[in-house]
Amino acid sequence: MDAIRAGIIGATGFAGAELARLLALHPRFEVIALTAGAEAGMEMGALYPALEHAYRGVQLVPHHHESLFSCDVVFTAVPHTAGMQHAARLIERGISVIDLSADFRFNDVDRYERTYEVSHTAPQLARRAVYGQPETMRERLHEAARERENGMPALVGCAGCYVTASILAAAPALAAGLVEPCAPLVVDGVSGVTGAGRKATARTHFCTANENIEAYGLPAHRHAPEIAQAYSRLMPSLGSAEDIRLAFAPHLVPLNRGLLATVHLPLATDIDPAELHATYCSFFSDSPLVTVLDQDVLPKTAAVAGTAYAQVNATVDKRTRIACALCAIDNLGKGAAAQAVQCANLIFELPENTGLDAIACIP
Amino acid sequence: MDAIRAGIIGATGFAGAELARLLALHPRFEVIALTAGAEAGMEMGALYPALEHAYRGVQLVPHHHESLFSCDVVFTAVPHTAGMQHAARLIERGISVIDLSADFRFNDVDRYERTYEVSHTAPQLARRAVYGQPETMRERLHEAARERENGMPALVGCAGCYVTASILAAAPALAAGLVEPCAPLVVDGVSGVTGAGRKATARTHFCTANENIEAYGLPAHRHAPEIAQAYSRLMPSLGSAEDIRLAFAPHLVPLNRGLLATVHLPLATDIDPAELHATYCSFFSDSPLVTVLDQDVLPKTAAVAGTAYAQVNATVDKRTRIACALCAIDNLGKGAAAQAVQCANLIFELPENTGLDAIACIP
Amino acid sequence: MDAIRAGIIGATGFAGAELARLLALHPRFEVIALTAGAEAGMEMGALYPALEHAYRGVQLVPHHHESLFSCDVVFTAVPHTAGMQHAARLIERGISVIDLSADFRFNDVDRYERTYEVSHTAPQLARRAVYGQPETMRERLHEAARERENGMPALVGCAGCYVTASILAAAPALAAGLVEPCAPLVVDGVSGVTGAGRKATARTHFCTANENIEAYGLPAHRHAPEIAQAYSRLMPSLGSAEDIRLAFAPHLVPLNRGLLATVHLPLATDIDPAELHATYCSFFSDSPLVTVLDQDVLPKTAAVAGTAYAQVNATVDKRTRIACALCAIDNLGKGAAAQAVQCANLIFELPENTGLDAIACIP
Amino acid sequence: MDAIRAGIIGATGFAGAELARLLALHPRFEVIALTAGAEAGMEMGALYPALEHAYRGVQLVPHHHESLFSCDVVFTAVPHTAGMQHAARLIERGISVIDLSADFRFNDVDRYERTYEVSHTAPQLARRAVYGQPETMRERLHEAARERENGMPALVGCAGCYVTASILAAAPALAAGLVEPCAPLVVDGVSGVTGAGRKATARTHFCTANENIEAYGLPAHRHAPEIAQAYSRLMPSLGSAEDIRLAFAPHLVPLNRGLLATVHLPLATDIDPAELHATYCSFFSDSPLVTVLDQDVLPKTAAVAGTAYAQVNATVDKRTRIACALCAIDNLGKGAAAQAVQCANLIFELPENTGLDAIACIP
Repeated sequence: MDAIRAGIIGATGFAGAELARLLALHPRFEVIALTAGAEAGMEMGALYPALEHAYRGVQLVPHHHESLFSCDVVFTAVPHTAGMQHAARLIERGISVIDLSADFRFNDVDRYERTYEVSHTAPQLARRAVYGQPETMRERLHEAARERENGMPALVGCAGCYVTASILAAAPALAAGLVEPCAPLVVDGVSGVTGAGRKATARTHFCTANENIEAYGLPAHRHAPEIAQAYSRLMPSLGSAEDIRLAFAPHLVPLNRGLLATVHLPLATDIDPAELHATYCSFFSDSPLVTVLDQDVLPKTAAVAGTAYAQVNATVDKRTRIACALCAIDNLGKGAAAQAVQCANLIFELPENTGLDAIACIP
Repeated sequence: MDAIRAGIIGATGFAGAELARLLALHPRFEVIALTAGAEAGMEMGALYPALEHAYRGVQLVPHHHESLFSCDVVFTAVPHTAGMQHAARLIERGISVIDLSADFRFNDVDRYERTYEVSHTAPQLARRAVYGQPETMRERLHEAARERENGMPALVGCAGCYVTASILAAAPALAAGLVEPCAPLVVDGVSGVTGAGRKATARTHFCTANENIEAYGLPAHRHAPEIAQAYSRLMPSLGSAEDIRLAFAPHLVPLNRGLLATVHLPLATDIDPAELHATYCSFFSDSPLVTVLDQDVLPKTAAVAGTAYAQVNATVDKRTRIACALCAIDNLGKGAAAQAVQCANLIFELPENTGLDAIACIP
Repeated sequence: MDAIRAGIIGATGFAGAELARLLALHPRFEVIALTAGAEAGMEMGALYPALEHAYRGVQLVPHHHESLFSCDVVFTAVPHTAGMQHAARLIERGISVIDLSADFRFNDVDRYERTYEVSHTAPQLARRAVYGQPETMRERLHEAARERENGMPALVGCAGCYVTASILAAAPALAAGLVEPCAPLVVDGVSGVTGAGRKATARTHFCTANENIEAYGLPAHRHAPEIAQAYSRLMPSLGSAEDIRLAFAPHLVPLNRGLLATVHLPLATDIDPAELHATYCSFFSDSPLVTVLDQDVLPKTAAVAGTAYAQVNATVDKRTRIACALCAIDNLGKGAAAQAVQCANLIFELPENTGLDAIACIP
Repeated sequence: MDAIRAGIIGATGFAGAELARLLALHPRFEVIALTAGAEAGMEMGALYPALEHAYRGVQLVPHHHESLFSCDVVFTAVPHTAGMQHAARLIERGISVIDLSADFRFNDVDRYERTYEVSHTAPQLARRAVYGQPETMRERLHEAARERENGMPALVGCAGCYVTASILAAAPALAAGLVEPCAPLVVDGVSGVTGAGRKATARTHFCTANENIEAYGLPAHRHAPEIAQAYSRLMPSLGSAEDIRLAFAPHLVPLNRGLLATVHLPLATDIDPAELHATYCSFFSDSPLVTVLDQDVLPKTAAVAGTAYAQVNATVDKRTRIACALCAIDNLGKGAAAQAVQCANLIFELPENTGLDAIACIP
């Protein structure tokens, strides 16, 4: 079989480098272009010694390098507003795009523009983009794959890291209609420092982040509308995304990779913990990258660090009738690059976990 | 002035050693007895080289050593059920007790027994014990100080670490009656590993706790009833502790000292963020150990590590009308030993921050 | 091709679990037995959630389980003295053994007995065992592979983690005869906490190891004679292992995986840094798992964590004529399990890096 | 008694902020000026919330602010070349200077210029400056104090962090003439990340430094000549600083504060470990800030983090006749700011540990 030619725009950021790492060992994708901004011209292995074997002699090219036009698929690991520009140019040439920026996460362009306070320059594309969260959007991704076969390049707007974990934690309860409408829903996210990006700042200095816990981005973090959109889709009787009374607080803690979403869901009715657990197992029964742990076993991020896996579970406090739903992921793995590869696998009609079988280190 | 003679029962656990460290530099308390279980007979400085200068040649004695009976005050840093036994013996001899176990945190003995699933062997004492959370119980502590002057030994049941932070985060909003009755209240706590105690287990192994985030103790952690009791006292219109629909999820993250409580409070009415901030500043205006940060500045645990201070702030999401109230403490400092010393200061009519002026390292 | 049936004795320790992780993804070895002591009977995935997918339903069996006798090769990841007992029983049945204990690291049985202060119960085997450090013993491992083909089971005594890094750092300089005979050689090793083993102790408690640096095992650590043995083999003019004046100080620092050996080598003659670098490149030109970095680029353990790779480089201070040779490995990877798999690959005539292509996370 | 008026030039760097923290609680020094570069105009407490209580309302002023001229003593926590400029201006006005830059560490101006590859603009001052390492320079500091009484402002060039630990580890053995002349001396230093400074760079990014060990600054780090100078003074028979064959390798590991020096000293003659230990105890018997641990107990940096203390010990390998001498300090404490305060105490004829009694957190 021919290799699928892949490019990575923004290969030197944390998500881009993780894509490079994953694709280096993928049996079907072949990386033919790695782009960078200021670091264009450097060798990938000089920048990241861990990649020296995989990319020996491979030079980073500028973001607009023509080699991208020979790709079958391009991953765009860039800040918002850059994603839409690259996508427009590539889609026009028939190249499928897996965008890791925020630019194609909302089909509702108004909502995007209000949330990010910028204009969308590719609204037509935004409206047809598929939301890249495979466990809850698998059918739409299959459909996009069929369209790609028929000549229409695919455009996937990958879910963010906090949102992915928030969705996976709550999806089974929401899809089963178990949640009390109108009640406040609370999502607390706790993330490692790779989530703050590669830029060296006072905040990402080792000595600032180490031995510290802090919340940030309050009161209204811009991932909250994306979580609300997903929750509304999963349980329409909650109302529209704007209606949902959702509180979201992200936290930064001292580790490299790992993200835990803790979702507090007031329930509409009494439900037995075993029944809730069965609902979770059933929901994810066809999802090879999501593990529902045994009842009463809680997720740990260390068990999924460096991998494409998510671990999920939910408990219920019978007195208060509030469920606590939990999901652990690697924010750069299932929360970013690995989920992007999972989407690409689906778009190219490969088993969704192809090339994603890495197991977390113990310890 | 004569020194106030102090003893520490359980001086080798993390909270006990922190008490020893704080009292070594306190201008009025003089430590005359440090007790231990299996480690009795060792020198404190051999066990903890950091204390070598402060306790040169001081030997740990058994928990029931008679030197305790020469104390004016004894701090009991022991597991629950042990606290009540020591307290009974000491109070009987007229010695004031500052208990760091859970045994005197509930005046309602039934509630204690249901929560901890043990019988209380000193129910009379439990009923008269003062809850050791000075910012919300200062008057009761002053009263106990006056009673001590009149010959009745004081008994303080110090608040736990998660509970202290949960109280300080929410107290101003609750005391002002701002919270929506009946709505679910959500407290997420994130703590460093000293909170898991000194015992070496698979869970506290460096390699298990490092590079990991996990929630634990779900669905119904036994600190939840203590938080509910405090919230009910602060805002009686919420109903009794049993009535409050409170969800509490504690999390373990890889650092030594630090605890952040993130409290989501649905509000009864619209309130301006500046007004909420003013409410917080006013509430803590007489509390030397609590810092309300400038509006929009969020607490960091690193700024209070190793100290007796708490940092507090609150934000409001105007769309959802949910406040997010935050408090950062050192779980062994303001969350345990330093708050115990603060209580003792009040009981002995010293300024409450006496001996508690240490400043956190930067960084 | 038929799978090569493999067993792991001691699969629950850190090195054993790493073997299980590596072999789960190896294209030729198939794990048919995982043994444990107290944890026999548990499922591997319940103990280590990261392995749940790879070992679903696989139960740990006792160390003497008969399924081991159906193996083609058994890895023994056990303490010293246990290695020799398992090996004797398995070799007798024609099963090749890759031993990760210290029991077969010395062909000189006396030296083993003096170093470990125990009797060797399988001295014949010790004398014929091959030292499992492929970059410096590749020919002997090929020879053992040929003998295995001819019916004699192989016995490999894998090099320890500190020793592996100390050898790789210094081997090119020693093999080229560059080192000043009689001068003191100094090896300082700095290791993460997985090197201290899985046992939960005061020393491996998160809060003890975190935010701490310490040396240990001084003055005469038992890995020093193993390093001296290797150095003597590589440069016989230094004299016997007993003659070499070697100082070795291991250090413990707060991370999970990673080991850096810093070897100070007084040189016999002036040598240009570029010439020394060329010597290093040449020495490792046929070693797929060792990367000699560009001149003046120093190794970082993070670039090899979770992998089978070593990074090596050396500098010279021309004024003092002392070279500083450095090697970074993952103590559980190239320092233990991955090197054991590399040895097994050679024994079964596979390319030595088969199944060992994992790339370190960035970051 | 009148307060001694102190200023800090460079109060926002890590060493400067530590000085501000220490002086805030010092019983005799009163800080009347804190200077900054780009951050001048900010409040100290806004920049470092931990200092909010101690410096409420105190604004950072520019480096050349006139308030400095009202000081009795100024601490200069600035890069090399800046130290000499500030010192010249202050000394001229009769103000004593405790310089934490490298500018006054060498009385031999040529040696300074060769090491730092810059010209010295205050060579006269450099020649008369006192080396700020009190345990080995106490008499000279006393002398400078007497001169200050007589009207000549003191100028102290504080020892660097690696050098301080290297001196304290080896001083007793060197002063007793125990070391083999001509043999290579090896110093390996292992430091936390505060040692790399406050600047946010790729190297100090949390995710780069975390879970990593690396050596740096090889082959010829510029602290090596300073170590050699100190060793030559302590044991003149080793020859001049240029003669000593010293290898020094610094290492960076993931923690905030802590530095361990491991010094390998080939000995001239056999010496019993107990005798060596007695030599150490005797050497430091009048040094309140240095603890010689019990024989066979090795220093840990955690026991001195946040403090002015050093822990020291030494072992001997009788076979190789190489001693391993160890010293643990806080690189910002005894390695920088606390040692500067200790020097200032001596210059102002206070007990040298005044205001330096903080005890390290456990843990």
